Amino acid sequence: MSKLKFIPQNKEIAVESGTNLLKAADQAGLYIEGDCAGKGTCGKCRVKIVEGETGKPTRAEQKHLSEEELSEGWVLSCQKKVKNDLIVEVPVQKEAPLRKTTLAGGVEKLEGDPAVEKIAVKLDRPAVKDQTADLERLLKHLDRDDLTVELRELAGLPGMLRNNNFSVTVTIAGNRIISIEPGDTGDQLFGIAFDIGTTTIMGSLLDLQKAEIIAVAAETNPQNIYGADVISRINHASEGKEELKQLQDKVIEAANKIIKDLLRQTKVAKDRVFEIVAVGNTPMSHLFMGVDPTYLAPAPFIPAYSRALEVEASALGLEINPGGRVFFLPNIAGYVGSDTLGVILATDMDKRNGKRAAIDIGTNGELVLAANGRLMACSTAAGPAFEGAQIKQGMRASAGAVEAVQYIDGDFKISTIDDAPARGICGSGLIDAAAALVDAGLINATGKLINPEENPEQVDEKFRQRLKRGEGGFEFILVPGSDSDTGNDIVLSQGDLRELQLAKGAIYAGLKILLKEMELDEKELDEVLLAGAFGNYVRKESALTIGLLPGLPPEKIIAVGNAAGDGSRMALASQSIRERAFALPGKVEHLELSTRQDFQEIFVDALKFGQ
Amino acid sequence: MSKLKFIPQNKEIAVESGTNLLKAADQAGLYIEGDCAGKGTCGKCRVKIVEGETGKPTRAEQKHLSEEELSEGWVLSCQKKVKNDLIVEVPVQKEAPLRKTTLAGGVEKLEGDPAVEKIAVKLDRPAVKDQTADLERLLKHLDRDDLTVELRELAGLPGMLRNNNFSVTVTIAGNRIISIEPGDTGDQLFGIAFDIGTTTIMGSLLDLQKAEIIAVAAETNPQNIYGADVISRINHASEGKEELKQLQDKVIEAANKIIKDLLRQTKVAKDRVFEIVAVGNTPMSHLFMGVDPTYLAPAPFIPAYSRALEVEASALGLEINPGGRVFFLPNIAGYVGSDTLGVILATDMDKRNGKRAAIDIGTNGELVLAANGRLMACSTAAGPAFEGAQIKQGMRASAGAVEAVQYIDGDFKISTIDDAPARGICGSGLIDAAAALVDAGLINATGKLINPEENPEQVDEKFRQRLKRGEGGFEFILVPGSDSDTGNDIVLSQGDLRELQLAKGAIYAGLKILLKEMELDEKELDEVLLAGAFGNYVRKESALTIGLLPGLPPEKIIAVGNAAGDGSRMALASQSIRERAFALPGKVEHLELSTRQDFQEIFVDALKFGQ
Repeated sequence: MSKLKFIPQNKEIAVESGTNLLKAADQAGLYIEGDCAGKGTCGKCRVKIVEGETGKPTRAEQKHLSEEELSEGWVLSCQKKVKNDLIVEVPVQKEAPLRKTTLAGGVEKLEGDPAVEKIAVKLDRPAVKDQTADLERLLKHLDRDDLTVELRELAGLPGMLRNNNFSVTVTIAGNRIISIEPGDTGDQLFGIAFDIGTTTIMGSLLDLQKAEIIAVAAETNPQNIYGADVISRINHASEGKEELKQLQDKVIEAANKIIKDLLRQTKVAKDRVFEIVAVGNTPMSHLFMGVDPTYLAPAPFIPAYSRALEVEASALGLEINPGGRVFFLPNIAGYVGSDTLGVILATDMDKRNGKRAAIDIGTNGELVLAANGRLMACSTAAGPAFEGAQIKQGMRASAGAVEAVQYIDGDFKISTIDDAPARGICGSGLIDAAAALVDAGLINATGKLINPEENPEQVDEKFRQRLKRGEGGFEFILVPGSDSDTGNDIVLSQGDLRELQLAKGAIYAGLKILLKEMELDEKELDEVLLAGAFGNYVRKESALTIGLLPGLPPEKIIAVGNAAGDGSRMALASQSIRERAFALPGKVEHLELSTRQDFQEIFVDALKFGQ
Repeated sequence: MSKLKFIPQNKEIAVESGTNLLKAADQAGLYIEGDCAGKGTCGKCRVKIVEGETGKPTRAEQKHLSEEELSEGWVLSCQKKVKNDLIVEVPVQKEAPLRKTTLAGGVEKLEGDPAVEKIAVKLDRPAVKDQTADLERLLKHLDRDDLTVELRELAGLPGMLRNNNFSVTVTIAGNRIISIEPGDTGDQLFGIAFDIGTTTIMGSLLDLQKAEIIAVAAETNPQNIYGADVISRINHASEGKEELKQLQDKVIEAANKIIKDLLRQTKVAKDRVFEIVAVGNTPMSHLFMGVDPTYLAPAPFIPAYSRALEVEASALGLEINPGGRVFFLPNIAGYVGSDTLGVILATDMDKRNGKRAAIDIGTNGELVLAANGRLMACSTAAGPAFEGAQIKQGMRASAGAVEAVQYIDGDFKISTIDDAPARGICGSGLIDAAAALVDAGLINATGKLINPEENPEQVDEKFRQRLKRGEGGFEFILVPGSDSDTGNDIVLSQGDLRELQLAKGAIYAGLKILLKEMELDEKELDEVLLAGAFGNYVRKESALTIGLLPGLPPEKIIAVGNAAGDGSRMALASQSIRERAFALPGKVEHLELSTRQDFQEIFVDALKFGQ
């Protein structure tokens, strides 16, 4: 066994010799950044060995760390096997809390029609002349002989009745009594809606009787230790039951953190939370429920289930009322999950007339097209560029991220989140930066940065210093090291532009194929809805400039915020909307892009910058 | 801590100093006899301290153990606190297995109409052109879109399908898939019926497709460490959640032993057992389910529930298929349980014409009267005399128990179970012995043994030596010490006769009150059914002689065997009979004897021996 001490967090743990340092940190409860599931390709999991041997640097470390850094003791934690006692300095994540608007949806007023009901009752005391059993006495009073009761609640009923003067409050879900509380707690009825994202998990606490959101909270999805993308996580889960359980434990643990946060904010007792409604992509749904996701990964991408699953909170270890129920909304296909279904619910695409596309931009882009009474959906693998991953200096949308870049009056205007010194580029900044470089004529239609030496006439004098040679082509300096938080230049690299092209090309190609299938031209669209936090931040003009979206007037592009989350909140607040959600998979046609003969051609065409 | 070693079982355990020796033995997994829940009144929990200090004898020990026994190291284990290391000899219980007939009922052919169904399916493989999810594929094949599936079964479905060429067998209960097994196991469908007695727990394994009993097994109810009677157990359970759990654990543990035994006998795999149907008195039902029974003990004797409870086997820790279901049949009142309901089912009392009484004789006697389209039931506290408890040399009906005593041709003919040397008297022997003494003129109508000194003319010369003075009156020697297993005389004491009178008086008085309530005379009865193992062994003539039963011709007295157990087997084998059982509590009128003004008078009248 080796002893590890992590500073400045001051956490200690003893691990078997040979344990991976990144996993050891996870065991100790520390969060270390990383996108590549320990493959050594992202270089983000760096830590500093303050005491103890660093060992020889691996190839990956040599690539991602400078000589100076190596000599100071910096290592990539994913590359290190613990062989002796170490003191490890973990860089404090400057990650600011997610911006409030990241959690917000576009739906302002919820329809209230809760699926759980509370009834306070006062029963007559039994007597020799009326020996009716306690449960039957209760059901008779409720005039609901059809109800069953959880054994857990029945077990203590006799004492509860007698200690509370035969006054109790029952909570009924469907035809089951899921909880019996002493006294009158009829006004205490809460639920939590979750949006289980691959990257971020968000929760909203609702007062179900008022149909109001009373708190929101979010956590990074800690499954990312097994990879930033769903395929890595599916692959890990498919190794065995224990591995599947590891992934389930991670997401449940994060959900419990969010629950605790929501309850802390509002002083609501956990036993007064009776329902959870969750949405997420199909792999997230499987991992949350602990269902084998193995066959989602290879063609033909088959989920274990499509329908909504209902399970007791206690069966999943979710820390609300143990009889509380958890619903995961249904998925449509292997890569079109209940998050997309949430978008449809929140935007009423299944009920409104007109020709309308919704795009939920993420590592997987999900697209829905509604027209002529049909609903069609597909998913397209955009990669993690929009989340700031696999971008040289990419980062999540938190303080210090370059979020907006405009080319105005012959110069670049750059701003960061919270106006903090620049630390990297987030997704919206990436699109903006690319669009601004297009506007400045520094990128050609194929997405290549102009070589200032070969084409001096195309590059304005004042930008010449900002184009420098990097790995695999030129880089454009957005923020010089002198102004940045890290002291390093914040750059947009040729590689970053390629990642962006692949990402936006995948999205645009997906939409083109949906339109083709419905025999529509993109100009016929009445609206394009941008779902997800990303949609709130991306400047429409930039998205149009780089050709992420069809060539429509900007007013037809509408950001609808976290519509997936909206959908989960709506389905939590309203039984009838929930039933609408349950029926949706049967109404949405799923298009599998991977089998389309025409995909490659349309995709290649969609790679180019500009319309 | 003190170390204890029990011989000859060779079990060792370390316990806190001060631990009660009887409890320590229980912790070590040893069964020590006893009826009084450690009060020191029954004297049956004797063990011998072979090494270590015995401590001072308590008053209870002085009463139950001779000087010689005390000097040899004998103690009552319930009286001893462990203070140092001990080696303790535990007398090996000579208890023979229960007689086969104890388990047998009167119902020979079961009606087969199982509530669970197995369907073997072979599904088409998915393809890109048919991306239907696994679960939906299965439900589509079954043409049962209404079915829900246990998450436990769904979790591994994708792998199971692909590893078994898409051939699986589903088990459906109601609208739930409770199990999915690889391959075709359609012919493997089993269930277990339990009769949870206060003293003995019996189980029967049924092949549900053939509606056949394929094995039976029984265990002593190990709750008896907390008292032989239900009131002691209710009192213990009412002390707190932990105490309730202790009692539940005991009965579940015994049920699991029976399950193991049944599976061992038949080589059936535990995962192929999908249903359990149990009957038992109301307190046993509560303790089995872990529901607070506190308010069953004091007036007005209110159960927590009356209806049938359904729960997953895994929730109770019962070791059958984890998705298997457990039903405890409904109870009628605090002291008229589903065992009585089982008697009604098995004897068709709810369906047949005629005037008929059924009597289930036990510590609690339960009585049912059916006449003129009405069904009425009551319970009456007979005490444990019929089980051989609180009888000086009482014992359960196992080898060596005096089971039959007849007065023929001027002498007593005495036989024991298995013709083994006499060890004590069981319930049927007690009734027989009393009846024989009545026949011989050695007991008067008030139940008093004749004093041979005062009334020499009433006592035949040859019996004079067999009447000896004991505590609280005379004793009659049934078997002299020279012929007995223990070397001591096996006697029937005046105290035993008093216990018997109280027991039989309670039963008979209960029946009289039922008859009175229905305005019937006992002579109008077409039949009196004797339920329970006891009914198989008691000689009708003796029962009539002592006035346990109404004065009817013997041919109207019919032993129906373990009818409660029969009822559980019938309800297990048949869904329609189970539903009949669920509806029965609403059809049976319950009479609470404790509130009857006339009970005492009728009871006192019913005490006398003879009609």
